[in-house]
Amino acid sequence: MTSRYNLDQLFTAYAAKDRLALSRLITMIENYSAEYELLIERLHGFLHNTPRIGITGPPGVGKSTLVNEIAQELRKEEKTVGVIAIDPSSPFTGGALLGDRIRMNRISLDPGVYIRSLATRGSLGGLALATDDVADLMDGFGCDLILIETVGVGQVELDIVKTADTTMVVFSPESGDSIQAMKAGLMEIGDIFILNKSDREGADRAYIEIETTLMHKPDGNWKPPVIKTSVLTREGLTELNQAISKHQEFLFTEDRIKVKQQARRQCKIKQMIETSILNEYWNEERQSQLAELSLQDISVVQAAKILMSLN
Amino acid sequence: MTSRYNLDQLFTAYAAKDRLALSRLITMIENYSAEYELLIERLHGFLHNTPRIGITGPPGVGKSTLVNEIAQELRKEEKTVGVIAIDPSSPFTGGALLGDRIRMNRISLDPGVYIRSLATRGSLGGLALATDDVADLMDGFGCDLILIETVGVGQVELDIVKTADTTMVVFSPESGDSIQAMKAGLMEIGDIFILNKSDREGADRAYIEIETTLMHKPDGNWKPPVIKTSVLTREGLTELNQAISKHQEFLFTEDRIKVKQQARRQCKIKQMIETSILNEYWNEERQSQLAELSLQDISVVQAAKILMSLN
Repeated sequence: MTSRYNLDQLFTAYAAKDRLALSRLITMIENYSAEYELLIERLHGFLHNTPRIGITGPPGVGKSTLVNEIAQELRKEEKTVGVIAIDPSSPFTGGALLGDRIRMNRISLDPGVYIRSLATRGSLGGLALATDDVADLMDGFGCDLILIETVGVGQVELDIVKTADTTMVVFSPESGDSIQAMKAGLMEIGDIFILNKSDREGADRAYIEIETTLMHKPDGNWKPPVIKTSVLTREGLTELNQAISKHQEFLFTEDRIKVKQQARRQCKIKQMIETSILNEYWNEERQSQLAELSLQDISVVQAAKILMSLN
Repeated sequence: MTSRYNLDQLFTAYAAKDRLALSRLITMIENYSAEYELLIERLHGFLHNTPRIGITGPPGVGKSTLVNEIAQELRKEEKTVGVIAIDPSSPFTGGALLGDRIRMNRISLDPGVYIRSLATRGSLGGLALATDDVADLMDGFGCDLILIETVGVGQVELDIVKTADTTMVVFSPESGDSIQAMKAGLMEIGDIFILNKSDREGADRAYIEIETTLMHKPDGNWKPPVIKTSVLTREGLTELNQAISKHQEFLFTEDRIKVKQQARRQCKIKQMIETSILNEYWNEERQSQLAELSLQDISVVQAAKILMSLN
């Protein structure tokens, strides 16, 4: 009863835009607390379906710097921003150099920006689910836009960013090999492509490489722009923000954003059911049967069949 | 009946060391063919529990080159080698530059080396399961050692390599930022650390960085060595092979390898059961109920509860 009472209090504070309440609710999601279901149920009434922008790309291309720039631009328009960093190398998560962290602090002290990092540990499905829930919490809190930063190499990380409404893929001139390498995965999912650190050597070549790779992408209703950006020379930053606005407009025509949101919801309901079924299945008895069967000299298929026939 | 007959034929050829049969059986695993269970059951009798070495690290550090070197060294001792590449940028998978691919062809033409690449697509659990099955097929085929190469950034990729008996983590002098970035994930799982391309600038600094990071690793029975290697100057290649042998010896004392193998088996049995349960659960009726419920203005928790109560 105590915890239920706490959840009520937390939601009252959350509704009153108390950042600490938001922070505590996020922690409850992260820890998959006992009140998880109650929390999600309560949260539903708060949702506005705020657009989500995923930012991905190889380590070191300056994803966090761009997140910072986009957030600052949105702040000029008095919009509030939620940032979720799932990149272990992100300055937001404390993974990167001190200089970066200090730079990021500028926006992290802004009361109109809410930043939260999520660790890439624990179960796979778990992380994607938590990211989505945290985005919902920021949505319900009143954020006008949610930026999700993930390092774009792993499968889970790509899956997370794929659920965003707008996906930005970032490269740098140094990621020549990576452009080749990640062609398959990243080129398919990008709505906006960025060549960051465009002041550096090799930028033109890398730009052409991205454009060439995209030529093979089948034509759709949206043609992904490729934008050169540099935080040093300020090249392309205005263009980047315009591209984001343009994609948002695109999303809101023909209810495209609704389709994306429903796909997210469906995926979430499915995962919840599966987690519940499997948790119930793996009771102590079955767990010890599993341990025992794995020691026997039988094939894994046979072991699985035996375990399933036992109960 | 025809397919059962084919599987018999395939296993007869497989037992006679027919490479084409191995290749076809691997394809059946990849495609999760209807005979999957029969295949796994038949395979059990062939298993020798060959040690598996996982090689991981950021893109571009030269993982495939090292795999090539290790394989060649093993060939000198007349050992047969299986190579599984799950890195989309691996020359083995055709992702990299032409020069690399030609270089790799030297070992790929060797009848004592069996190379197979697996794509990082499809379901998450699926890839890990397939990797393990393909490793089993190479094991049963008589490979003396199995090398599994994955790009070490994503969660799934790390999970795959973690199941190896020996895990090698590779960096290059250029991956300074990445060393920082991936500290958390990669430092924990490595049994052997390699600083490859040690002829390049910044090698000493990167080496110290790896050593410093490892200082924080709690002491265990195995102290992971850090080895500088260069294919150009041939530095450290003998040392690398010695480190692998030494870790293999370590694994075979106190049955450590058996513990790892049983953990893999347990994980596999568990995944098989879960796949079977969930496949059965998501019949057409439930799938359409899920689609319907996701459109309604109710929380995902409520939708999950309704769906679960319906059946």
